[in-house]
Amino acid sequence: MTAAPIPFSARHIGPGINDVRAMLAVIGVPSVETLISQAVPRSIRLDQPLDLPAAASEAEALAELSEMMAKNTVLKSFIGAGYHGVFVPPVIQRNLFENPAWYTAYTPYQAEISQGRLEMLFNFQTLVTELTGLPVASASLLDEATAVAEAVGIALRHHRDKRTKVALAGTPHPQTLDVVRTRAEPLGIEVDGETIDDNTAALLVSWPDTFGVYGDHKAAIEKAHATGALVVFIADPLALTLTDAPAKLGADIAVGPMQRFGVPMGFGGPHAAYCAVSDRLTRLMPGRLVGQSTDTMGRPGYRLALQTREQHIRRDKATSNICTAQALLANMATAYAIWHGPTGLQAIAERIHTLANRMAAGLKAAGVTVLGTHRFDTVTAEVKGKAAAIAAAAEKTGRLLRVIDADKISIAFDETSTEADLEAIAALFGAKSGTVEADSMPGKPRGKEFLTQPVFHENHSETDMMRFLRRLADKDLALDRAMIPLGSCTMKLNAAAEMMPVSWWNIANLHPFAPAGHSAGYRAMVGELEAWLSEITGFDAVSLQPNAGSQGEYAGLLAIRAYHRSRGEGHRTVCLIPSSAHGTNPASAAMAGMSVIVVRCAEDGSIDMDDLRAKANEHSKNLAALMFTYPSTHGVYEEGARHLCALIHEHGGQVYFDGANLNALVGLARPGDIGADVCHMNLHKTFCIPHGGGGPGVGPIGVRAHLKPYLPGHVTEGSAHAVAAAPFGSASILPITWMYIRMMGGAGLKQATETAIVSANYVATRLAPHFPLLYKGRSDRIAHECILDTRVLKESAGISVDDIAKRLIDYGFHAPTMSFPVAGTLMVEPTESEPKRELDRFCEAMIAIAGEAAKVAKGEWPLNDNPLVNAPHTAAEALAGAWAHPYSRLEAAYPAGDADLSAKYWPPVSRIDNVAGDRNLVCSCPPLTEYLGAAE
Amino acid sequence: MTAAPIPFSARHIGPGINDVRAMLAVIGVPSVETLISQAVPRSIRLDQPLDLPAAASEAEALAELSEMMAKNTVLKSFIGAGYHGVFVPPVIQRNLFENPAWYTAYTPYQAEISQGRLEMLFNFQTLVTELTGLPVASASLLDEATAVAEAVGIALRHHRDKRTKVALAGTPHPQTLDVVRTRAEPLGIEVDGETIDDNTAALLVSWPDTFGVYGDHKAAIEKAHATGALVVFIADPLALTLTDAPAKLGADIAVGPMQRFGVPMGFGGPHAAYCAVSDRLTRLMPGRLVGQSTDTMGRPGYRLALQTREQHIRRDKATSNICTAQALLANMATAYAIWHGPTGLQAIAERIHTLANRMAAGLKAAGVTVLGTHRFDTVTAEVKGKAAAIAAAAEKTGRLLRVIDADKISIAFDETSTEADLEAIAALFGAKSGTVEADSMPGKPRGKEFLTQPVFHENHSETDMMRFLRRLADKDLALDRAMIPLGSCTMKLNAAAEMMPVSWWNIANLHPFAPAGHSAGYRAMVGELEAWLSEITGFDAVSLQPNAGSQGEYAGLLAIRAYHRSRGEGHRTVCLIPSSAHGTNPASAAMAGMSVIVVRCAEDGSIDMDDLRAKANEHSKNLAALMFTYPSTHGVYEEGARHLCALIHEHGGQVYFDGANLNALVGLARPGDIGADVCHMNLHKTFCIPHGGGGPGVGPIGVRAHLKPYLPGHVTEGSAHAVAAAPFGSASILPITWMYIRMMGGAGLKQATETAIVSANYVATRLAPHFPLLYKGRSDRIAHECILDTRVLKESAGISVDDIAKRLIDYGFHAPTMSFPVAGTLMVEPTESEPKRELDRFCEAMIAIAGEAAKVAKGEWPLNDNPLVNAPHTAAEALAGAWAHPYSRLEAAYPAGDADLSAKYWPPVSRIDNVAGDRNLVCSCPPLTEYLGAAE
Repeated sequence: MTAAPIPFSARHIGPGINDVRAMLAVIGVPSVETLISQAVPRSIRLDQPLDLPAAASEAEALAELSEMMAKNTVLKSFIGAGYHGVFVPPVIQRNLFENPAWYTAYTPYQAEISQGRLEMLFNFQTLVTELTGLPVASASLLDEATAVAEAVGIALRHHRDKRTKVALAGTPHPQTLDVVRTRAEPLGIEVDGETIDDNTAALLVSWPDTFGVYGDHKAAIEKAHATGALVVFIADPLALTLTDAPAKLGADIAVGPMQRFGVPMGFGGPHAAYCAVSDRLTRLMPGRLVGQSTDTMGRPGYRLALQTREQHIRRDKATSNICTAQALLANMATAYAIWHGPTGLQAIAERIHTLANRMAAGLKAAGVTVLGTHRFDTVTAEVKGKAAAIAAAAEKTGRLLRVIDADKISIAFDETSTEADLEAIAALFGAKSGTVEADSMPGKPRGKEFLTQPVFHENHSETDMMRFLRRLADKDLALDRAMIPLGSCTMKLNAAAEMMPVSWWNIANLHPFAPAGHSAGYRAMVGELEAWLSEITGFDAVSLQPNAGSQGEYAGLLAIRAYHRSRGEGHRTVCLIPSSAHGTNPASAAMAGMSVIVVRCAEDGSIDMDDLRAKANEHSKNLAALMFTYPSTHGVYEEGARHLCALIHEHGGQVYFDGANLNALVGLARPGDIGADVCHMNLHKTFCIPHGGGGPGVGPIGVRAHLKPYLPGHVTEGSAHAVAAAPFGSASILPITWMYIRMMGGAGLKQATETAIVSANYVATRLAPHFPLLYKGRSDRIAHECILDTRVLKESAGISVDDIAKRLIDYGFHAPTMSFPVAGTLMVEPTESEPKRELDRFCEAMIAIAGEAAKVAKGEWPLNDNPLVNAPHTAAEALAGAWAHPYSRLEAAYPAGDADLSAKYWPPVSRIDNVAGDRNLVCSCPPLTEYLGAAE
Repeated sequence: MTAAPIPFSARHIGPGINDVRAMLAVIGVPSVETLISQAVPRSIRLDQPLDLPAAASEAEALAELSEMMAKNTVLKSFIGAGYHGVFVPPVIQRNLFENPAWYTAYTPYQAEISQGRLEMLFNFQTLVTELTGLPVASASLLDEATAVAEAVGIALRHHRDKRTKVALAGTPHPQTLDVVRTRAEPLGIEVDGETIDDNTAALLVSWPDTFGVYGDHKAAIEKAHATGALVVFIADPLALTLTDAPAKLGADIAVGPMQRFGVPMGFGGPHAAYCAVSDRLTRLMPGRLVGQSTDTMGRPGYRLALQTREQHIRRDKATSNICTAQALLANMATAYAIWHGPTGLQAIAERIHTLANRMAAGLKAAGVTVLGTHRFDTVTAEVKGKAAAIAAAAEKTGRLLRVIDADKISIAFDETSTEADLEAIAALFGAKSGTVEADSMPGKPRGKEFLTQPVFHENHSETDMMRFLRRLADKDLALDRAMIPLGSCTMKLNAAAEMMPVSWWNIANLHPFAPAGHSAGYRAMVGELEAWLSEITGFDAVSLQPNAGSQGEYAGLLAIRAYHRSRGEGHRTVCLIPSSAHGTNPASAAMAGMSVIVVRCAEDGSIDMDDLRAKANEHSKNLAALMFTYPSTHGVYEEGARHLCALIHEHGGQVYFDGANLNALVGLARPGDIGADVCHMNLHKTFCIPHGGGGPGVGPIGVRAHLKPYLPGHVTEGSAHAVAAAPFGSASILPITWMYIRMMGGAGLKQATETAIVSANYVATRLAPHFPLLYKGRSDRIAHECILDTRVLKESAGISVDDIAKRLIDYGFHAPTMSFPVAGTLMVEPTESEPKRELDRFCEAMIAIAGEAAKVAKGEWPLNDNPLVNAPHTAAEALAGAWAHPYSRLEAAYPAGDADLSAKYWPPVSRIDNVAGDRNLVCSCPPLTEYLGAAE
């Protein structure tokens, strides 16, 4: 296309040249380079520019990607195997999926400004409990395969890690089995066969199996219950709209993919998986759970329940390292269910079921053997050596069938399938569609109404739905309205040009197991992205499969484990982890079968090198790895990173580099150069994939050449040991990162990092007189984030970090990261995308809050009645008849003045009581029928 | 694709079956058909179903349209002639163009809830005044061609219709000249030649001309000024970023298309045209003008200025009938200018200019003659008989050039043109790009800085721009948040599935003058749409060219005029118009060279048949037409419509049917069957094109066979007498209507009409006890809208219709249509899309307002201090320290209770003072330099 008048990097980076100059003046350095050289140790600096293609304009990059993706061949898929064609309702696509108010939101830790997406996730949980009949559902997991692995994890925890076997009832999808085995192997868990005994932790019931068949598993389920094994249903959620709920059939846990609830296949992801459990398993459930509580006025309010689990994942005892959910996709799936309602969902399911049944009947009439007698949407035919030929013939008609082996082929119908498809496919077998036999799903029809909750009935006209989505969006504060200054989470711009390709037809609608040649465009993009990320991180190879940071960690440690074993050093299982590490690190290590040894940290958050040396010596023989985060979770570039890597290598260990803070390094230093062997990147932090209100995330890993053979494989790519269901994980959102790197170029990326550091030091400099900076690095400079010690206000005025966080809402801000890594502090990361005037607005809000606290300290305002402890203020409170507070209504609601009345964000609730909510856990809406029952 | 579980009609129509039943119960009829047969005269009822394709699902319709549009051939255009390739900044595409908060808004008559789009339109005016150097600019016109015609209209009005000639300096684009001539002819105005004398009203300066050449027009301009003729510059706005402003060169008026400011070509439209005038011409300017005033607290606020002009367009003396603007597109163009800023715009312009100059130099070097010496973006070459061959060769390389005639070909560069394009095109002439000669634009560079206003400098990073667009959107109340119960404007759902195709590549990026074969997809869609609209209205042919309702009226009357003339009855120039008609009717008639005779209306708003009969008799010989609206502007189906048509025909006249209220007829009755000869439809009312905050609109006309030869033509289609610049008007938004009809089917359309009537009668029934219904039709039923007589509250409590309108804002509603067609009343049209619970919310708000007025009447609240006269209440007022009002703060801001705090819409300003604003007209921001000048 054309050269843009202003390069994309200047669009992405918030502060302009004059802004940067002004910030440098406040910091007190003459140039960006001076600041960088003060902050970043010379020893790790990258001396050459990144070897990336020159920056393209938005138009050029879109044209290039469009040309590349035109190489994909998008035929109509009947492959199934967990991925189905869908029609995304346009009202949802436009008003939710493509709406920055939804996709730029952060994880809903701050309940008061997250009521919209929390309400939707709560509805998701309700939907899942209704479908499964189980009382408790989480707010989504990553995909079917990892959800099954997590279910196994629940069973292991339930049995306190005493049982070591998992049995199968029916064959799961191959990729599911592979991921479960990947996860089971380091823990010494055997996944095999149908035998159930006292050592069986879980029975996995495929409902239906990978051939589309519902087996008769009653006996196995009874046996499992008799031996105390948990029964896990892997169930298609759309099929469940027609049949008895798994709970009725004996399920203790149910999991499955919600993709076919209106989320495009996207060459594998992202989509949400569901997980529901019986009451007694609630606290063993991984991932996030949305609960209901009340605010200070007794109004109902949603919030993340049992949240403490997550921030303190049980480190070395963990059997799950999950923290990301797939919030955006779970919300899409929920919106789809709301839009269609129970009757609509059942109509969709019934139509699909009828197509499948007519196909089966037609094939049988034509003398073709069809597997099983009970099915939902999939027909598997025995065709003796002709599977490939039939698939090839189908492909010529524009349709993809699934070749299971030379003799078996299967056809999965979905909501996009038509009569014409049915006849055309039947014809390939010399058949035509048959008439439907007696009903062929077990437990059909559903015994009672489901989804009777009003929300699933009130939004079936588009006007209603559009307003419902807007109303929820308006309850939340996302990047489209204000800075989200979250330390370690890098909430930067998700540019529209980066986001738009995700909606493209040939990106959204490719089946992940389509013949490899059909994804030529995707594979070219993946290849470039792998090469670019390798260059940026200084590694030799990259795997894009891990679909969350935690999965990246896990995949990286598995590679290290496999490497040691390949050299006959399988005994190397000790993993050193500094005490300042994020909880996912030890959890991942434990899942990879490693023993965690904690290394002490100095007062300033830096690794205690003496202790490290001592522990490395002590465990030298068995040393598997060191995991460390750089810059540290304390926001400074520690000296001696290279030395630390060398030390571990001397002891035969491998270095795992946690890339959470990569936004402070890109273009300035590379983990590979520093000496790391493997590193994960959070594409949803450093590389512009939006947080989606709590997911999706993508966590690829980079490795040095010696670890390359141990990167995750995939059954459909001729290898195994996958960590995610799809070969390229959340493939459909990788174009976001591709676009970002393509438009920034090497120089732009470096400039972004530099600006992030300038902005962080600027904020730190402005706020230091009011809130002590907890840690500083070289020359008293920080990296891309800083920790403000707000405990001073606790001491002087009784104002807690919570009070500050909630008061920031009145000022129109999301709070910084609270109490991580140090309790009672706020970690602030401005990122390069925030304009200087927004940084100033934030600094001024923080300074004003310090001033407010000072009034409390001086006794001008009482300890128990001031705008901080009462924050946030809703409009109803601010307008209430009586006003007994010592500050004014305007001070309550417009603390920064009312210059622009309309820019005010009003929280829909006042402070939410988290403790009461956890004590009285409510995490889904009871159906109306229960109320009726109670009334009778 | 697939059958949807719920038909689109049930998505589009808000009330479900149970809702309709409940409404019928309130109305007191047993069935929909009973109500319809009561309301709609038997004599006009359509007896058979509409002959339209069966309703398609959203997926099916999208697939069908996609397949159709794939037949378009979208090559890279170098055709120019007023239409240029653009790159729409993704941040604008996603957050403005594709955002329902922007596109579903109504025309900003209610200033307090329209501050966002008014601010943007004000910026548009500022942009235009800066580009042109003229002090007053309007908020946009329809396209270049009609804008030039409107400029001629200003000149005629300026000369009090005493002058009859228009002179040309330089050749305008052929379509522009054609439209100007179409408009001039009925008024007896001659548009020709270069002669300027005392009878010359205007000199049209093409800047540059259609060949891309800037001529030397100094002498002509001087002559024009000497004779008192107005000088009208038709100027490319992008070129103006580089050169002296037209005002400096003597322009009294400047007009031109803003399409190349980031609005796609869309096969011709819609896009905005600009119009700027010198101070003395301000009140002669057609269309809308945004001005600044203050609210009750003295805060600045925007509003439509000189608004009274519009509602009372000077009927029979009119030389303009414009009321629609192109608000959405003007706002896109403004956003584009804000995004790029003056430096960015100049960089884009300079790059284009350089490409053109290098092309010219290269051609000259190769011995090709090039027209003119001064140019901006276009090079016209003399190629002696080879034009077609060169164009054909260019087409083979994927590029379209403009064949002017056998010997002349021209090449227009735009922001999407590249170096490769330059060389490839030069090669077709046996040339290569040359080096740039001395600067070849007159008045370059611009003498002083322009666009120094902060808004053009503060939003160059995407984070800033995204938030700026959100902040403006949040100031406004549009359909995505609440019902807009506007009588006669039919604010119904604009479904996402209807809107999405407008963004498709092959719909957005086709040049309107591309070879006819390249628009095969468009033409197929146009053909189907014409056929469907013919069927729906009962006519024989439809023209989609008129790009506003007013243009449709005009085109229809021109057809009537031409028909009479073709029969030797050119003396038939009398047009009968009922006194209740909308002001555009007489204005259109006057423009078509007709004399308007007003027919009296009875007390109940119906046409006084005795007076009609008398006037038809009196003017029988010269009777040209009757224009009438049906159902009447009073919201009832009058009896005797057929009789009325027959009467006019008896006198040799033609019947013009104003289709403003077609939403009450579709599927139930057809204008053609009733006896009309021509009718215009408002696709932006009845057929789902969104109002865009004040445009675009589309106003096609249907005619009976005898008028078909007189439908508008187009120079590029081998005919003439166009009424709009492009052959198919606003072609790129026609798919919205195509999708609507395709997804509704005949039965769905009929059901929509019926539901609209049910809903209107339901609202009328509920509100009648509180506000007298001004008019009722047969059986006391109304059509699709009702007029509430709010004058009762004026009498009882001093509460004006304005007070009610503003108080509705506190309740979260846009006001109904105010004081049209009867002063002091509200006209309410619920449409079929509004859900029943929103209708109820509205009814309850109106009833509550009646209750509030009753308190005033009883003296509980003073006349000058009550929530009605003080409405709307901003958050700042509601929270103010002192509260001296007799009602509470909560009653002020949450009159309907605070059940859902977050759903509250807060107006950004309190009541705006319109009168003061008009008295002190401010309609653009002065540049900063003026402040500097004042300070010096």
